Amino acid sequence: MILVTGGARSGKSAFAEKLAAEFDRVVYIATAQAFDDEMRDRIKRHRARRPTAWTTIEAPFDAHDVIDRLRADCILFDCVTVYLSNFMFRPSERSIDEYFRLLIESLRNFSGQSIVVTNEVGGGIVPDNPLAREFRDRQGLINQSLAAAADEVFLCACGLPLQLK
Amino acid sequence: MILVTGGARSGKSAFAEKLAAEFDRVVYIATAQAFDDEMRDRIKRHRARRPTAWTTIEAPFDAHDVIDRLRADCILFDCVTVYLSNFMFRPSERSIDEYFRLLIESLRNFSGQSIVVTNEVGGGIVPDNPLAREFRDRQGLINQSLAAAADEVFLCACGLPLQLK
Amino acid sequence: MILVTGGARSGKSAFAEKLAAEFDRVVYIATAQAFDDEMRDRIKRHRARRPTAWTTIEAPFDAHDVIDRLRADCILFDCVTVYLSNFMFRPSERSIDEYFRLLIESLRNFSGQSIVVTNEVGGGIVPDNPLAREFRDRQGLINQSLAAAADEVFLCACGLPLQLK
Repeated sequence: MILVTGGARSGKSAFAEKLAAEFDRVVYIATAQAFDDEMRDRIKRHRARRPTAWTTIEAPFDAHDVIDRLRADCILFDCVTVYLSNFMFRPSERSIDEYFRLLIESLRNFSGQSIVVTNEVGGGIVPDNPLAREFRDRQGLINQSLAAAADEVFLCACGLPLQLK
Repeated sequence: MILVTGGARSGKSAFAEKLAAEFDRVVYIATAQAFDDEMRDRIKRHRARRPTAWTTIEAPFDAHDVIDRLRADCILFDCVTVYLSNFMFRPSERSIDEYFRLLIESLRNFSGQSIVVTNEVGGGIVPDNPLAREFRDRQGLINQSLAAAADEVFLCACGLPLQLK
Repeated sequence: MILVTGGARSGKSAFAEKLAAEFDRVVYIATAQAFDDEMRDRIKRHRARRPTAWTTIEAPFDAHDVIDRLRADCILFDCVTVYLSNFMFRPSERSIDEYFRLLIESLRNFSGQSIVVTNEVGGGIVPDNPLAREFRDRQGLINQSLAAAADEVFLCACGLPLQLK
């Protein structure tokens, strides 16, 4: 398992896609839901960049189930931050922590290479908004759990990867 | 003197505590004041994680005096950002710069190991709020002074330390 | 071409100035416009720190033209973020992307050493404000283009440079 993190527009996804391109059968696990035009645009641009040979599976809430049933040489999960935000805005049967425990377990158990993209969101001033503070805290703790489970961790800045682990 | 920096929930405190755990008599210098439930919770969680053998001293405003009088093998000062925010919201006899000059002097003069936790707060968009901009500027300049005075500096991300100095 | 990036008050400008001070004829390309007192103060403080032997040229919109006509051993462009914000708030003949394509071309073609200062702005929570989101996206993509064109890239934190390329 490889974790790729970085700020917004730091080149994380492109770097993760480059790593995935080394593998034969790649499944891209998409987490974004197209609510509005901004999101639709972003999804379209990301999709246009990916090799057409890759399979895309949308899994905004049940990625662990999807990963458990997959057969592929490599899965690219992009991204943890959008996946977390999906849970922040809807009531769930299980706790958010439980969903992420299941996700990390599935990623670790996956027989091929798993590549996971996440975001650094804790580098600014404390947000005024309590929900933003909760999000920032959850994201940071999830990133720590993912990094602890990962074999390699890269931090991207200006499109350049820096290996942390 | 060792400086540990990073964004929110980047694993800074846990890493600093791991460094401190190598020493015999550790004094934890707590800077937080429990104004509200969110802060009380955070303080409680941090405290539960620390070894019970450590002494905790609360020093929201006069850490330099406390450090000057201490005898210990290691002090863990957590954190500079909360300490700075304490001064931002109350009138003081001396300037904020002067309080930080005194703090850095005391940390350098301390005979044992000092470990200092701070935050990266300048990695987002320029805040709208003038006070937030002032805070961000002060925090950045204080971090530069601390790093110049420190023997080692670590930047944490996803719970992983990266040595900058 | 050397790119120096980092968060607010991370010591980027001071580090870039130290690199520039190795050269004989240095031209400082200033991008800031003094709209208000906060900006005027910042410009004054930056200016006071620079060697008096350096030439300063103000180029808030046409830096590519200025660079194309310059003869110097070193140019210090400080900074990309302010330059981008200048374009965000006025109608332009060309697209913003085109201005930055021209800038990067001029920086690469410059016969001496070029040193460029930029900012990391994507490390916080997603901003509420759509203009802030657009700015953050543009800044990140421009940083990727600059880093791809640069021979060396440094990320500053707490006044300490970390070489990314």
